[in-house]
Amino acid sequence: MKKAIDIFDSTLRDGAQGEGISFSVEDKLNIASALDELGIGYIEAGNPGSNPKDLEFFQRAASLNLKHSTLVAFGSTRRKNSKAEEDNNVIAMMTANTRVVAIFGKCWDLHVTEILNAAPEENLAMITDTVEYFVKNGKEVIFDGEHFFDGYKANPDYALEALGAAVKGGASCLTLCDTNGGSFPFEIEAAVKTVTERFPGVTVGIHCHNDGGLGVANSIAAVNAGATQVQGTYLGFGERTGNANLSTIIANLQLKLGYRCIPEETMQFLTTTAMEIAEISNITLNNNEPFVGLSAFAHKAGMHADGVMKCSESFEHINPAAVGNERRFLVSEISGKTAILKKISKFAPDMDKNSPYIKEIIDQLKELEHKGYQFEGAEGSFRLLVQKILGNFTPSFDLVSYKVLDELPYDNNFSATTTIKVKVDGQLKVAAAEGDGPVNALDKALREALGTFYPSLSHIHLIDYKVRVMEPREATAAVVRVLITSTDGNSIWSTVGVSSDIIEASWLALVDSIEYKLNFKN
Amino acid sequence: MKKAIDIFDSTLRDGAQGEGISFSVEDKLNIASALDELGIGYIEAGNPGSNPKDLEFFQRAASLNLKHSTLVAFGSTRRKNSKAEEDNNVIAMMTANTRVVAIFGKCWDLHVTEILNAAPEENLAMITDTVEYFVKNGKEVIFDGEHFFDGYKANPDYALEALGAAVKGGASCLTLCDTNGGSFPFEIEAAVKTVTERFPGVTVGIHCHNDGGLGVANSIAAVNAGATQVQGTYLGFGERTGNANLSTIIANLQLKLGYRCIPEETMQFLTTTAMEIAEISNITLNNNEPFVGLSAFAHKAGMHADGVMKCSESFEHINPAAVGNERRFLVSEISGKTAILKKISKFAPDMDKNSPYIKEIIDQLKELEHKGYQFEGAEGSFRLLVQKILGNFTPSFDLVSYKVLDELPYDNNFSATTTIKVKVDGQLKVAAAEGDGPVNALDKALREALGTFYPSLSHIHLIDYKVRVMEPREATAAVVRVLITSTDGNSIWSTVGVSSDIIEASWLALVDSIEYKLNFKN
Repeated sequence: MKKAIDIFDSTLRDGAQGEGISFSVEDKLNIASALDELGIGYIEAGNPGSNPKDLEFFQRAASLNLKHSTLVAFGSTRRKNSKAEEDNNVIAMMTANTRVVAIFGKCWDLHVTEILNAAPEENLAMITDTVEYFVKNGKEVIFDGEHFFDGYKANPDYALEALGAAVKGGASCLTLCDTNGGSFPFEIEAAVKTVTERFPGVTVGIHCHNDGGLGVANSIAAVNAGATQVQGTYLGFGERTGNANLSTIIANLQLKLGYRCIPEETMQFLTTTAMEIAEISNITLNNNEPFVGLSAFAHKAGMHADGVMKCSESFEHINPAAVGNERRFLVSEISGKTAILKKISKFAPDMDKNSPYIKEIIDQLKELEHKGYQFEGAEGSFRLLVQKILGNFTPSFDLVSYKVLDELPYDNNFSATTTIKVKVDGQLKVAAAEGDGPVNALDKALREALGTFYPSLSHIHLIDYKVRVMEPREATAAVVRVLITSTDGNSIWSTVGVSSDIIEASWLALVDSIEYKLNFKN
Repeated sequence: MKKAIDIFDSTLRDGAQGEGISFSVEDKLNIASALDELGIGYIEAGNPGSNPKDLEFFQRAASLNLKHSTLVAFGSTRRKNSKAEEDNNVIAMMTANTRVVAIFGKCWDLHVTEILNAAPEENLAMITDTVEYFVKNGKEVIFDGEHFFDGYKANPDYALEALGAAVKGGASCLTLCDTNGGSFPFEIEAAVKTVTERFPGVTVGIHCHNDGGLGVANSIAAVNAGATQVQGTYLGFGERTGNANLSTIIANLQLKLGYRCIPEETMQFLTTTAMEIAEISNITLNNNEPFVGLSAFAHKAGMHADGVMKCSESFEHINPAAVGNERRFLVSEISGKTAILKKISKFAPDMDKNSPYIKEIIDQLKELEHKGYQFEGAEGSFRLLVQKILGNFTPSFDLVSYKVLDELPYDNNFSATTTIKVKVDGQLKVAAAEGDGPVNALDKALREALGTFYPSLSHIHLIDYKVRVMEPREATAAVVRVLITSTDGNSIWSTVGVSSDIIEASWLALVDSIEYKLNFKN
């Protein structure tokens, strides 16, 4: 039987402190559902005392009918010289109506005197009173010892007294916070050990930040020393350098160290959950994120790609399928022939390693990459390129011309108008469309022009549009790479276009998207 | 006297295996210079046997006149059934003409038999022969024990024998590689300890990958156990999840653990070096990168911002100035009044916390953030917004209209033409310009129109142009945020614009850029 670890996700509370993060209530409800589906134990969802939007979340969250997760409201101990039951923050937390609350209190004497301007004993009373009030009102209380590790370094006796004050109030869990994120694993391990020995029978938790790049290592060190609750944020969102990354911690603990953090059967959804949360948060997931990133199992060096094909454990620390991720072979000038061949074999299985086409493909890839193309995220355009080189491609249409007019002010709902002329099977067709910006108008005009010839195009729609400015030093005349992801409801494909004109770059990616559909998905 | 650690940077070799990384020879020379300026000990710059572009680098690198760094050529042991002096890879490495070479050889018996198809003894001979050949030719040899830790787990005797074979050949350093990046600090520490005891007098190095999110922690654990050379890449570039991040490791070891990695006096350039390498590599540096990221010392929560102002160590693990970074207070709806006030005080020092303007500013910020604006990276637009609310702003010009025409095919060098009409002091002015894309044409036309009224604008140029598509599900009709960074040679400012029309979003950011110059920098 594997030892259980309680995973406590604070994406919605501490994660919201990250630069560039701004959750709507709707976003928070969607993220809570995703975490629940994965089987996360606790979801800390807000600080009702400091943010009214969080109260709305707790009111609406009842309708989520969470299966695995327990919602937690977060807030501070009562103010000095007040009573818990009269404290606005405490009252707001009660209103959130959760079974579990997390109360943070100060463990570093410097903070008590310098920031709170309170006497050390007063701070201890604030902790005990507040915890006790919630316990008496039927709540399970997690005590977050703010700055515990820095406090323990500066004045270990006082830091432990603060924890003792929470235990006295009835806290069932003492979570030790490395609030400034600057501790090392050996420091964390020693302090956690002391706390578990000092307070037997109380659950000990860990809450790390990543300021030293050690958030994951510190959390694991705490578990090694006896902590059984791990706080963090699923993708490491958080103030400054972020909180400890739970997706990484869960994979390490459960796949390698024999702990149970989430149900075995949901482990395969670790990656899709990461993509979903990134998407809802409107954050681009780092490609090189451990376990769940797009590049986490991507092999580029020719030699490594060769090695993995011979024996997968030669360059992979785990089987990517265990976390629902997949192995990829990158197309690039460093790629060996073997990796290119492996990629091509999906649609041209008879290709031989010594075929002159392979050299031609590699040469053209090099030239296009030099211009700013990148096919690593544009498998659709890569396949079209290969088919063109193999002579297996006939264009479905030719562009005669387009003209895009964009103006300000504009006299209707649309700022842009496009006229387009295309030729299909020798037949000319002219079309026009208005749009919400130039690329939207161009997209609509092209579909309008081709629709009578290719009715299946009406099922395609674009689900992602990305722009990367590649030589930012050239500013507005820089080369721009546009990536488009399209779907016809059954499958998804991505295409790329590059130009110093953003409209032309978008055009090239749009054309590839449509040709891909007409050539390979009809 | 602090104990010295040799820092060995492989950005140019192992870093180049990262997805999305593609260095020109020029890029590599520029990165080598940046690392040398910082005082990095070793720069592994390429694999001349597998990449001809790398040979060109080594030929041109002589002209760099590096002050601190020693260049290293990297390559494998000789092939089986051959002689070192006849091996193409060995010959290419000699041609690179470096004083130091890094030779990698296999330490995991599984790899020897499965990937190399060689007998275990043959592999040992390959290691000894190759190292010996280079030593006899006057080279200092670093032996990179590939897959050392996985090999040590599977067959410790053989892994140690492989190291012994390198020592027999005359290697002066044994670098232990966690090639698959899946080890834990406690495993690294134990194995490094064994190696330092087994091979006294030989330098031991560490080379970690970040597949478990533990690259930094593992490197530090190795140093704790006696390793004195640390390999990695400055920003963690590398295959899959990347190599151990040297900028993080250097800061941890030197600022907190009492080691000396780079000269004390260059420590303050840790952050600018990171920005420079990211820029040359055309990679966006993660904001939340420890120590050197834009957000590494950015405070958002009102309470934290308050705390830092009272006592900086309350929410900062180090002084940001120690690594050349700086503290920032973020403008956002979570920001407390204090943080907003602190920001405004730079240009409106008399503002009072209770002024009704503060509430108005916070309300407008919330509304604009809701539309997709973000002022965290656009201090220029933030200042204009505040001045508008305070009634201290008079526009320098009004737009009457612009029309941007973009076409394909186009009959000259420019795909876009803009006509613009503006009003300055009641006077109408019409201008037109062609450009390399619609935004470039609009930018040129606006400057043309305003130039006669405001000659100082001729000194401005744009140095960065970024596009973020914010609701990718809406694809080509999505809301787009444009960030522009401008300079007049003396100072730098950033401005922002948001619209579903990318041209309009760019227009808004351009207007702010010009108004900023005319209002605050004239």
